[in-house]
Amino acid sequence: MFAFTVEVPLPIDQAIEKFTQALAAEKMGIVSDINVQGIMKAKLDHDMPAYRILGACAPGLARRVIESDRDAGSMLPCGVAVMAVNDRTTRFAFQDPIFMAGLTDNPVMKDVAQEAKSMLERVRDRLAQ
Amino acid sequence: MFAFTVEVPLPIDQAIEKFTQALAAEKMGIVSDINVQGIMKAKLDHDMPAYRILGACAPGLARRVIESDRDAGSMLPCGVAVMAVNDRTTRFAFQDPIFMAGLTDNPVMKDVAQEAKSMLERVRDRLAQ
Repeated sequence: MFAFTVEVPLPIDQAIEKFTQALAAEKMGIVSDINVQGIMKAKLDHDMPAYRILGACAPGLARRVIESDRDAGSMLPCGVAVMAVNDRTTRFAFQDPIFMAGLTDNPVMKDVAQEAKSMLERVRDRLAQ
Repeated sequence: MFAFTVEVPLPIDQAIEKFTQALAAEKMGIVSDINVQGIMKAKLDHDMPAYRILGACAPGLARRVIESDRDAGSMLPCGVAVMAVNDRTTRFAFQDPIFMAGLTDNPVMKDVAQEAKSMLERVRDRLAQ
């Protein structure tokens, strides 16, 4: 699968606050935040539950990736879809970095992907606590 | 390769303006903009030339992807790394949507990836003109 997931018994805003703290413990941060629900309403007049795509980044890992291949920034950051399942439950889907790096022969990208995946799995585990 | 590229004989700000217009011609827009150069300076005190990661999105395609698999938003948007080669030349690296979708069995994602790739290839061609 291209993603691994966790569901958190919190409304979406509180769940994202917990996610931000869990990222910080890994020295990661959110570098992009796309309000998909808002875009769907504005562009397609389509109603859907809250849905955001957050970009999670570990600056040291990103630097290694870009220095190994200047075009590899196009694969960054790690995408995390965050969606309201209902008013009390939020689902996180983490793009699997290994899955992405599996498509390259670049050994730095493979190493970094393994590190990034381990970090994001710890983030997921903290969200599940 | 995970990306296809084009170099444009314009400084980065003007090149991104041209890119934005080329996206609009495909009814696509920029939904995220990460200043990698700024993050590297702030977080790692590392100096590098201008480097941004833009997220390109076609709302109709994004909707089809998310409706086919709610977790697939984690693969969106299409990442485009934009970097200053020098003061007069800007390089764009487009993440190849087919490359990503090749990893799934989801027929909707494969179809959408083909459409997105065709759109981005036309954007690249307009940038090259």
